[in-house]
Amino acid sequence: MIRPDLDHLELSLPANYTPAEVALAKTLFFQYLAESAHRFYHGKIQIMPKVPLPGFNWFNVWYTPGVSRVSTSIRDCAEESYELTNRGNLVAIVSDSTRVLGDGDVTVPGGLGVMEGKSFLMKFLGGIDAVPICIDSRNLDGMPDADIIVDFVKRIRFSFGAVNLEDISQPNCYRVLDRLRAECDIPVWHDDAQGTASVLLAGLLNALKIVGKNLADVRIVYLGAGASNTACARLIHQCGADPGRAVMFDKDGALTRQRRDFESDPRYHQQWELCRITNPRSIIDLAKAISGADILIAFSRPGPHAINPAWIASMARSPIVFACANPVPEIYPAEAKQAGAFIVGTGRGDFSNQVNNSMGFPGILKGALLVRARAITDAMAIAAARSLARTAENRGLDPDRIVPAMDEPDVFAQEAAAVGCQAIQDSVAGRHLAYDEIFRIAKADIETAHRSYEALIHDGIIREMEASEIQAVLDRVIREINGRGQ
Amino acid sequence: MIRPDLDHLELSLPANYTPAEVALAKTLFFQYLAESAHRFYHGKIQIMPKVPLPGFNWFNVWYTPGVSRVSTSIRDCAEESYELTNRGNLVAIVSDSTRVLGDGDVTVPGGLGVMEGKSFLMKFLGGIDAVPICIDSRNLDGMPDADIIVDFVKRIRFSFGAVNLEDISQPNCYRVLDRLRAECDIPVWHDDAQGTASVLLAGLLNALKIVGKNLADVRIVYLGAGASNTACARLIHQCGADPGRAVMFDKDGALTRQRRDFESDPRYHQQWELCRITNPRSIIDLAKAISGADILIAFSRPGPHAINPAWIASMARSPIVFACANPVPEIYPAEAKQAGAFIVGTGRGDFSNQVNNSMGFPGILKGALLVRARAITDAMAIAAARSLARTAENRGLDPDRIVPAMDEPDVFAQEAAAVGCQAIQDSVAGRHLAYDEIFRIAKADIETAHRSYEALIHDGIIREMEASEIQAVLDRVIREINGRGQ
Repeated sequence: MIRPDLDHLELSLPANYTPAEVALAKTLFFQYLAESAHRFYHGKIQIMPKVPLPGFNWFNVWYTPGVSRVSTSIRDCAEESYELTNRGNLVAIVSDSTRVLGDGDVTVPGGLGVMEGKSFLMKFLGGIDAVPICIDSRNLDGMPDADIIVDFVKRIRFSFGAVNLEDISQPNCYRVLDRLRAECDIPVWHDDAQGTASVLLAGLLNALKIVGKNLADVRIVYLGAGASNTACARLIHQCGADPGRAVMFDKDGALTRQRRDFESDPRYHQQWELCRITNPRSIIDLAKAISGADILIAFSRPGPHAINPAWIASMARSPIVFACANPVPEIYPAEAKQAGAFIVGTGRGDFSNQVNNSMGFPGILKGALLVRARAITDAMAIAAARSLARTAENRGLDPDRIVPAMDEPDVFAQEAAAVGCQAIQDSVAGRHLAYDEIFRIAKADIETAHRSYEALIHDGIIREMEASEIQAVLDRVIREINGRGQ
Repeated sequence: MIRPDLDHLELSLPANYTPAEVALAKTLFFQYLAESAHRFYHGKIQIMPKVPLPGFNWFNVWYTPGVSRVSTSIRDCAEESYELTNRGNLVAIVSDSTRVLGDGDVTVPGGLGVMEGKSFLMKFLGGIDAVPICIDSRNLDGMPDADIIVDFVKRIRFSFGAVNLEDISQPNCYRVLDRLRAECDIPVWHDDAQGTASVLLAGLLNALKIVGKNLADVRIVYLGAGASNTACARLIHQCGADPGRAVMFDKDGALTRQRRDFESDPRYHQQWELCRITNPRSIIDLAKAISGADILIAFSRPGPHAINPAWIASMARSPIVFACANPVPEIYPAEAKQAGAFIVGTGRGDFSNQVNNSMGFPGILKGALLVRARAITDAMAIAAARSLARTAENRGLDPDRIVPAMDEPDVFAQEAAAVGCQAIQDSVAGRHLAYDEIFRIAKADIETAHRSYEALIHDGIIREMEASEIQAVLDRVIREINGRGQ
C-alpha cells in the first residue's frame, strides 16, 4: 500500500520499471491523483475570518455602524488602508490562463486550479494571503489583449498590496509587466521573469563556489530567450558576470545585432538589449558557443533530447548545467553528468538542485509587502538570491545541494528580510524597518499560517483522503503503463 | 469594566444619559472601537488552505505537475470548474466605493473595510467564501462609469460562482445590475435591492399576521425611491399587495405619471414603472397620502427627524412603520411608538425588528450557489422572505420580534434550501437537488465554517482584544459626550 504522505513513491512502483517509465508513472500518478483530490475537496483554498467575535454586538464593530470609521479614515489617508484592512498582506494572482504551465491556453477558468495552488503556496511558505483571479483578457477581436490586462490590474490596485502576474502568454506578458511596473505604485511581480531568475541565480552563485570559479570570469551560454532566461541573464550580469562572455540562443539562432525581429518590436526590448550587449564576436553556431563555456542555462523546449550530450562534453572544466524546461528537462541529469556535467539543476522536484520558483516568490513578496515597496527592483531579486544562497551554504554545499529546500528553517523569513532591506536601500519602500524586525514579522506570520493550518487538521476539519483511494489511482497508472508496453 | 463580548453595553454607560445620548454613545463607541480593532488585527479576513498536505510530495498534486490535469479537465468542460476548484462556493464582492454605507464616496480603498466585513458575514452566516474587490471605476473624464464596472465583472466571471455588487452610487448601480443580469450567466446580486427587500418583506409578512391584516388590502406609503425601496415595492406587489393602494415619494415629491425625470431616463425604469402602476389618484401631498395608510416604509434620509410623528398618528389602526435609514432611522422607534405605531422596524441592530441585510444574502447566495443558479429571480428573493418569516413565526411572533435573528438555528440553511428549490422551479438552476439535500449541504458548510473558526480561537491563534483597551475606548466616548454637554 502506498504511504498517504507520498514519500518514497518510487518504492510503490514495479521494481522493473525503466527510469523513463518511473518518470512517466510519477507524472501520471500526480495528475490522476490531482483530479481525484481536487474533485473530493472542491478546490484548495477558502476565506477565513482572522478576528474574534466574542459576542454578536461585535458585528457592529466589524461591520456597520462601526466600520464607517474605517472607511472615512482610509478616505482621509489612503495609507491607512494598509493598517486597517488586510491589504498590506494581500496579493492578487492575476492570469488570463493563456499559457498555463505546459498546457498553453486552457480557457479562462482552466487556470483556476493553478492559481489556487499558488495561493496555497503563498500562505504556507510566506504567510501571505493571495486571491486567484483568472480574467477574460479577450478584446473585441477575440484575442488576448495586453492592454486589457493592464487596465484590469490598474482598476484593482487599491485593493491589494501587490500583484502577481501568472501564466500570461508571450509577448503579452512583456508588455503587461513593462506597463504595470511603470504605471502602478504597488509591486507587480512576474514569477517567470524575476522569480525564476532569482532562484536560479542563488543556485549559480553556490555552484560557482563549489567549482571555485568567479562570476566575473565565466563564459555563459543561454539556451532560450523567453521571459525566464532574459531575466536570468539580466540578473546574472547585474550581479557581476561579463555579458561580453555570454551568448544567448533561441529557436531562431543566436542573439546578435543582426536580429531585426527583436530590434523592430519594442515588446522584445529585453531581448534586443541582450543582442546589443552579449556575443561581441557574433557567434552564430551553438556548438561553437558552448565549446569551452563554463555554464549552460537552458529554458528552452521540453526534453529529454533538447541538449546534446556532446555539447556538455565540450565545455570547460567542471561544467555547470541548468536544464529548466518543464515538465521534462532539456536533458536528464543522469545523462548530463555522464557527459561530464559537474553540477546539474532542473525545474523538477524529483531531481536534486530544483530551480523552484516556490523558493523565491513567498519570501520576496513577503519582504516587499512588509516594507510596502512600490516596486520589486532587480537588486531586490538579487538580494533574495544571495539570501537563498547563504541559507544553502550555511547548511553545507555539495554538487547535489546548491539551493535550499522549502523546509529549511527560516529560509523565507530571511529572504523577506533581505528583500525588504534592499527595497529600503533602493528607495522604493514606504515603510522603514530593520532587518530583524522584518524577519521577526515574517517568521511570526509564517508560523501563524502553519499553526492555523495545523489547528484545522488537528480538529479533523481538514481530513486526509483514504489511503485506498490513493492506491486505486496508483493501480490505474500501473495498469496503463503496463498496457502501453504490450 | 465593560464586558468584552459587548453584551449589555448600555449598562456600561452613565445612567443619566438621555436616549439620544445613549444612541450617540453607542455609535461613537462602535466606530472608535472599530478603528482600534481594525488597526490591531490589520483587517478581518484571510486566505486558508482547505486541503491536507500529508507530505511535501503533495505539492506535486496540488500544484505542478499534477494540477495540469485540473487545467485540461476544465478546458475540456467548463462546468468542471465548479467541481475541481473553489469556484462553486466563491463570491466576488465588487464595489467602486462610491456610496459606502452612509459615507458616500470614500475613495476606492475606503470601501475595503466594509467589503471585508461582508466577506466575514458570508463565511460566518452562509459558509460562503467571498473575496472583497474594490475597483477604480473612473473613466477618462474621472467619473465613476457603470459600463466599466460591467466590463470588469464580465472579465472576472469565470473565476467566481456569483457576484455581489455593493455600495455603487446611483444611478450607476441600476445600469450595472440591469446589464449584468442580462449579460452574465452567473448570479449577480445587489443587496441594496433584492437583499434588503427580501428581509423587509419577511418582517412585513409577519407584522401583518400580528395586526391581522391582509397584504392585498393594505395601503402602503413608501418614503424614498432608491434601489432599496423600489425593490421593496416590486417584491411586495409581486407578493400580492395592490400597487393601486400604494404611493411612493422621493425628495422631489410623489411618484406620478407626471415625473418626466424618471420617464425620460431609462436608468430609472424601475421608478418609472412605479410611477405608472401606483398612486392612481396622483396624490402629491405626503401627509395626505400617509393619513389612513396601514404601512409606512421609509428608506430615505438619516433621521431622527425625517418622519413627522404627526404622520404616524394619522395612520390607520395598528400602524406598521419601517424606518430604515442608516446610520440613524428616520424616526427613533420610541418616538414612533409614542405617536401610535404598533410595530416599528429599523436598520439598526440595537433596536428590535432589525431589517438586516445579513439575514438575507448568506442564505440566498448559498442557495443560488448550491444549485448553480444562473440568476437570482424575484421569486427566489420572495422564497427567502417566506422562509425567514416562517422561521420567526415558528419561534413565536410579537410586535418586537417579527424577523428572525442571526443565531436562530438553521435559519440560513433553510433559507438556502427554499431559494435553491425556487431556482429549480424558475428554470434557472444548473443542478437539481432536493430541498433536504440543499439544506444538508448548506448546514454542513456553515457548521464547518463555525468549527474552523472555533478551532482558530480555541488554539489561541485568534485572540480577543484586552478588556482594558475596550474600556479605554468607552471612556473616551463618555469624555467626549460629557464634554459636548458642557
